[in-house]
Amino acid sequence: MPEVPGQNAAPVTPSASPHRGVGVSDVTLRPIGFWGRRQSVNAEATLQHCLEWMERLGWIENFDRVARGETTTDRPGWQFSDSEIYKLLEAMAWELGRTADESLAATFDALVARVGAAQDADGYLNTAFGHPGLPPRYSDLAMGHELYNIGHLVQAGVARHRTGHDDQLVQIARRAADQLCEEFGATGREAVCGHPEIEVALVEAGRAFGERRYLEQARLFIERRGRGILPVRPLLSAEYFQDDIPVRDATVLRGHAVRALYLTAGALDVALETGDQALFDAVTGQWERTVARRTYLTGGMGSRHQDEGFGDDFELPADRAYCETCAGVGSIMLAWRLYLATGDVRYPDLIERTLFNVVATSPSADGRSFFYANPLHQREAGAAASDGVNNRAEGGVRAPWFDVSCCPTNVARTLASLGSYLASTDDEGMTLLQYAAGEIRAGGFVLEVETSYPDAGTVRVRVLDAPHAEARLRLRIPGWADAATVRVNGEHPSTVAPGWADIRRSFRSGDELTLELPVAPRLTWPDPRIDAVRDTVAVERGPLVLCLESTDLPDGVGIDDIQLRSDAVLTAHRDGALAQGEIIAVPASTGSLPYRADRSHSSDPRPVALSLVPYHRWAERGPATMRIFLPVTG
Amino acid sequence: MPEVPGQNAAPVTPSASPHRGVGVSDVTLRPIGFWGRRQSVNAEATLQHCLEWMERLGWIENFDRVARGETTTDRPGWQFSDSEIYKLLEAMAWELGRTADESLAATFDALVARVGAAQDADGYLNTAFGHPGLPPRYSDLAMGHELYNIGHLVQAGVARHRTGHDDQLVQIARRAADQLCEEFGATGREAVCGHPEIEVALVEAGRAFGERRYLEQARLFIERRGRGILPVRPLLSAEYFQDDIPVRDATVLRGHAVRALYLTAGALDVALETGDQALFDAVTGQWERTVARRTYLTGGMGSRHQDEGFGDDFELPADRAYCETCAGVGSIMLAWRLYLATGDVRYPDLIERTLFNVVATSPSADGRSFFYANPLHQREAGAAASDGVNNRAEGGVRAPWFDVSCCPTNVARTLASLGSYLASTDDEGMTLLQYAAGEIRAGGFVLEVETSYPDAGTVRVRVLDAPHAEARLRLRIPGWADAATVRVNGEHPSTVAPGWADIRRSFRSGDELTLELPVAPRLTWPDPRIDAVRDTVAVERGPLVLCLESTDLPDGVGIDDIQLRSDAVLTAHRDGALAQGEIIAVPASTGSLPYRADRSHSSDPRPVALSLVPYHRWAERGPATMRIFLPVTG
Repeated sequence: MPEVPGQNAAPVTPSASPHRGVGVSDVTLRPIGFWGRRQSVNAEATLQHCLEWMERLGWIENFDRVARGETTTDRPGWQFSDSEIYKLLEAMAWELGRTADESLAATFDALVARVGAAQDADGYLNTAFGHPGLPPRYSDLAMGHELYNIGHLVQAGVARHRTGHDDQLVQIARRAADQLCEEFGATGREAVCGHPEIEVALVEAGRAFGERRYLEQARLFIERRGRGILPVRPLLSAEYFQDDIPVRDATVLRGHAVRALYLTAGALDVALETGDQALFDAVTGQWERTVARRTYLTGGMGSRHQDEGFGDDFELPADRAYCETCAGVGSIMLAWRLYLATGDVRYPDLIERTLFNVVATSPSADGRSFFYANPLHQREAGAAASDGVNNRAEGGVRAPWFDVSCCPTNVARTLASLGSYLASTDDEGMTLLQYAAGEIRAGGFVLEVETSYPDAGTVRVRVLDAPHAEARLRLRIPGWADAATVRVNGEHPSTVAPGWADIRRSFRSGDELTLELPVAPRLTWPDPRIDAVRDTVAVERGPLVLCLESTDLPDGVGIDDIQLRSDAVLTAHRDGALAQGEIIAVPASTGSLPYRADRSHSSDPRPVALSLVPYHRWAERGPATMRIFLPVTG
Repeated sequence: MPEVPGQNAAPVTPSASPHRGVGVSDVTLRPIGFWGRRQSVNAEATLQHCLEWMERLGWIENFDRVARGETTTDRPGWQFSDSEIYKLLEAMAWELGRTADESLAATFDALVARVGAAQDADGYLNTAFGHPGLPPRYSDLAMGHELYNIGHLVQAGVARHRTGHDDQLVQIARRAADQLCEEFGATGREAVCGHPEIEVALVEAGRAFGERRYLEQARLFIERRGRGILPVRPLLSAEYFQDDIPVRDATVLRGHAVRALYLTAGALDVALETGDQALFDAVTGQWERTVARRTYLTGGMGSRHQDEGFGDDFELPADRAYCETCAGVGSIMLAWRLYLATGDVRYPDLIERTLFNVVATSPSADGRSFFYANPLHQREAGAAASDGVNNRAEGGVRAPWFDVSCCPTNVARTLASLGSYLASTDDEGMTLLQYAAGEIRAGGFVLEVETSYPDAGTVRVRVLDAPHAEARLRLRIPGWADAATVRVNGEHPSTVAPGWADIRRSFRSGDELTLELPVAPRLTWPDPRIDAVRDTVAVERGPLVLCLESTDLPDGVGIDDIQLRSDAVLTAHRDGALAQGEIIAVPASTGSLPYRADRSHSSDPRPVALSLVPYHRWAERGPATMRIFLPVTG
């Protein structure tokens, strides 16, 4: 059964999951709140910023060249640049689902028309392969990204359909999907794409358009993978492509982090739609081990610059943490599907952590520059970003655009569809998953949420309308909240443990719930098996990971000369914290190795007041050194 | 003035340095000693092993194809495969300088003839560029490695000349050097090669052949570099190529480690031959900061897999240490030149550390497999190496050959010429720099060295012949040797501090010096600024870094579950050590992040006896996990 266009304006709609995300049009965020502000900046600045860059670099004109029959090998952009246009179209589609901006609608239509003009008669669509002067179709499945590109096109088409339109983008996406099902179906090429993405897109297309064969094609791609099907080339291993172990046999995420996360989200979608319990269990097991052993305090994933990959268990260096912004988006994609299927609170807990400390970290306040990598320790202050195209993973400063520029559009589509992740409905009522100021209309409820979270821990939920019968309103109590309370109207507040706080009653308009979350700064200690941060400690405040920036240190004191006192009294300060530390001075040595027979190297420590700020806005006051985990003393 | 062939059979002969290395033919190592055994295995197995692999893969046939005019783009091997043949020729040349093996001489001549047949009339020699069906000469200076290849050819030619031959290889090398001086001279292309090596080779060629223009060309290459002269491409920065900062302005080594070390060795050679004190000071400053902040306990250099590069100061992760074997060779090249110029003991100290813990670590006992990367912590045991071509940096096991196979031939040429680095002469006499059983003939001395160092610390030096006049015999006392003694004949032993022990007298045949070095196991603590190994300790024994291998742990105990007691009593055990440790058990967690509100995670530690083995032979008993730095308790 195809979905009715506009009925289900959410990014993920598993047919069998007990929980459903709310539609993007069912949430109105206050532009002054933490997330409302970012969503507004995304709409007002980032979408246009991405469009302008891709126009300037010729990535959009690549489509015109195909349409004009003027393709050449000196085409600008990587072989995956088409996907950036598609991710921008997806972001615009969600944004148009929230608002009805005529100017944006016109921009969207014009861009769709240019994409559509490049589509071949049989549905094939690509600007880097398959046309005169370019390599043939599917001639480099390992690195050509042809199916990856179409995956993002299909996700854009699904977003358009779900937000109420059955127009040109939807038709382009479906024709492209049909073509590849023909090409790669059970009787076609027995191949997969080097970069997963088509799998998750095809399941979503199957749901949106009621086409079983899309789901079947996704299932085929999942089953084929992990059997050494992709040609290995020097310096790229099968693990990089997750082609080393069949998906259902793997026990942990590995290889290129974004590839691994997209693939696993697709595998979970296939498991859910086909009722494949073994595959579902494999994915949940992979998620659990990955979170317990290969995930950063920020929620970031990917420990290695080399291959942009996961590391071994507990290989979690702070300084060389890659934590690609796109891996954060991929982690949310996976955790969201797991939540909808299970209702387990661990998933929205990780989503919150990742939203506040990865997704919110990437864009600058003006929405026109971005972090690609998100290290937890910056040893040398970056140079100012170039106004031009920047190297993706270097610098320690947000940059307007990258040679590989996957992150800006990924942030854009996530922020445009953010409303969907804030709440869910099920047969018993509605669940508030994330706390942001605004109005939410779902499950028969209309709720007004008033909060300055995460700066403060008070969340007021006013019922503006409610179902007629008794219903359950469920609030998520984050894992770090050890003394939260909930008060219903004038009643005495109840202490609630991390997990879920359920209020079951006949709600009436005017009812008010008050949730108090303890957002005082707190110390967080790493597992001793994480060698890279042994005997250090981090400071968190509510969902925010804090950091120490060189900007806040006395002149001449380096970020790596600081220790935090283990008996430090932490106090809230603006949206960060104050604490007591020490400046240690390690004697300089030249020409002798930094290893000695004597354990103690540091001379008299000097006390210093430390001001810690939210990690998500580090480097906003100019290039700086920074660290999250501080060595501990006392 | 050209050198007389055979007069100066040493790898480096600065014209102005006060110290001179001894000739390879002046040292005869006992095949039973630590280095003698390795040099024998190199001669008897490794040279042939490398030859067979390069024949099998078609890297040698590439020269035949050029000679036959049958070059095509599907040529096997990377664009730098020619250099592997040249490095093997250099190794063979030194080996033939030590011994006069007729079979090896015939093999050498046949290989030289095949190389020579591929040389163009104007001296150009390359199998990947400049012939029909291949890209034009010098069409990819950033990554084409054309000058890099010729650099290694020239070094092979110099080795042949210095070991007493002025034959075909010497002529081939000189013609190739002449061609590139013509092409890249002051009035030619203002360019440099993406991979330094030609610089150091040209200075050596200038010394060996008395050609000032080779030196001048090297000087040009050094001066041009660091001004953004190489075309930057996506994902490769100017820093990677050391093209970001002029050599004389840089303060530390950075970018690709082997490139940086080769370049700096060449820059120092230029400084020495041109009397450029400012350049000399720049290089010594770079070395000092690099050693103090960017060097591993093993002497290894290169903290990053990404770009095979140096990291920032104190970015020295144990698990992801790259420490390419070739960077160890490059570090020895640089330190050796610095020693010859200054006589400073820090340089042979680092050479010893690097020889025992990087160079000796790479080859297996049979000389037929090699480590490319030399991490200080292996979290997951490697799979058995493939009998075929292996991925360069993965595995944790020695492999017979790599896709990028620079290390085996680099080890081979180093071991074949090792004798030169063991002692030096100057106007006052002779200095013993490294201790190995054998006979050394230099500076008017003939010395017999009897020792089982580093297993034991006793080194007996018997004077078999000596200069007629008073002379100085100088012994290096390593920086770690805090209670060494020297005894001359029957005299009372004198305690000598780290540095130099000088014995100045009229030596006579029959004199005997006895050096006692304290090789009892000892603890070594890392600088607290090295975050990756905070609150851990290493155990060393003499020049050897020891490690803990999973092979020596009880079943079911992981390498990362071990702590060393800070009050451990270390005792020597074979060539390693015994110590007391504890097994800690960190509760398993699934699905929750490895960060908690509570500092203490480990439950009751259980005592365990630890057996530590020399790092240089780790993984010899099969794939294993391993660590050098152990968390410390108590």
